[in-house]
Amino acid sequence: MSGWVAVAGLGPGAGDLVTPEVAAALAEATDVVGYIPYVARIAPRPGLVLHPSDNRVELDRARHALDLAAAGRRVAVVSSGDPGVFAMASALFEALEGRGDAPEIRILPGITAMLAAAARLGAPLGHDFCAINLSDNLKPWALIEKRLRLAAQADFAMAFYNPRSRARPEGFARVLEILREECGPGRLISFARAVSTPDEAIRTTTLAEARPEMADMRTVVILGNSATRRVGPWVYTPRSAP
Amino acid sequence: MSGWVAVAGLGPGAGDLVTPEVAAALAEATDVVGYIPYVARIAPRPGLVLHPSDNRVELDRARHALDLAAAGRRVAVVSSGDPGVFAMASALFEALEGRGDAPEIRILPGITAMLAAAARLGAPLGHDFCAINLSDNLKPWALIEKRLRLAAQADFAMAFYNPRSRARPEGFARVLEILREECGPGRLISFARAVSTPDEAIRTTTLAEARPEMADMRTVVILGNSATRRVGPWVYTPRSAP
Repeated sequence: MSGWVAVAGLGPGAGDLVTPEVAAALAEATDVVGYIPYVARIAPRPGLVLHPSDNRVELDRARHALDLAAAGRRVAVVSSGDPGVFAMASALFEALEGRGDAPEIRILPGITAMLAAAARLGAPLGHDFCAINLSDNLKPWALIEKRLRLAAQADFAMAFYNPRSRARPEGFARVLEILREECGPGRLISFARAVSTPDEAIRTTTLAEARPEMADMRTVVILGNSATRRVGPWVYTPRSAP
Repeated sequence: MSGWVAVAGLGPGAGDLVTPEVAAALAEATDVVGYIPYVARIAPRPGLVLHPSDNRVELDRARHALDLAAAGRRVAVVSSGDPGVFAMASALFEALEGRGDAPEIRILPGITAMLAAAARLGAPLGHDFCAINLSDNLKPWALIEKRLRLAAQADFAMAFYNPRSRARPEGFARVLEILREECGPGRLISFARAVSTPDEAIRTTTLAEARPEMADMRTVVILGNSATRRVGPWVYTPRSAP
């Protein structure tokens, strides 16, 4: 039997946000590879080997998945959200570079955190927007700052992944300062934590009132564009721009 | 019985990319409202009223959905992809402005076209990226051009929705010119048409070779960033930036 790798997006947390395509791949898999909390979301069953691994070992994990597939295993590499958005798909292709073998690979999309959060908030990403990973593990801080300023000048709504960690608590404070400089104090900003899980918490405020502690590593942060507004409990960005 | 509106994302086309959450809402709905080709994706059943409407009447459609819900109906407003990305969610909140009533509203996320396309291509959106609607129905052309240039300077990967229509065939040719100026001729660009449907067609080339005719209104276009590369048949953007 020939092996394969399916890099599957589990969505933000709720079972009813997992696509049937992903559920089918998990049902056929012999092995599940991924970061510990994501593998913990997979129900154990006879014949399924779970391979949880720690954070920040994405390339090792990808190589492991390719090795298992080369040995004939059917491997699901699981990510939260969508595997192509700051998750395992890029790591898999990096690991594929220079290998002689190439097993069957499928990337199975999922509901990424910013879209689950946007849906709960209303429609803050209803016009042009960008997605920025605020972790500076894999890029210099100067590039993050440059992107923030240019995105603000372009008047994009913005979604921020990985806003804050214990390793760099000061980074997100600096992000908020830059955004206040570029967008002014009245701009709407929303903090969406653990959307679709029992820990879900949603808050919308202005840049003037935003505090770094409003985000943690389970939070996606969404900044409106200059036209983003509230209607009742909702936040949305109109489809048209002046 | 009290009415509700669920603005539901049907994903890019395939049934196994519709979330169970959306399937459940459709099963409970009394009415389905949406653009003709999207309503055509809903299986008729006794007791379900289908309300297909033409393109470019989003606000009328949203008002109709709110009126039906106010009358106690359970209304699914269907969009392709995700309802919050250049789709019906923003229109619904625009229609809600100034109304005295507010029925129960839920926005149900879906797999948006750029993420389905990215999954087929590999991982071209694996680093920071932006999403730009190239339709100039609802915004001035000058703003599109400004956003393209700033996004290029920020070295975002980019996903383009609504790249080309019969009403404005020249717009996308101009977009390609601007991108060639800003990003150079060697930059990778992918055209993903009707992903996950029987009409699916995928092509990756360079800006030097890209032609406007490679896109139509069923195509999402993905431009790599300066680091985007090929490995085998795949296109991906590395997770790290220099």
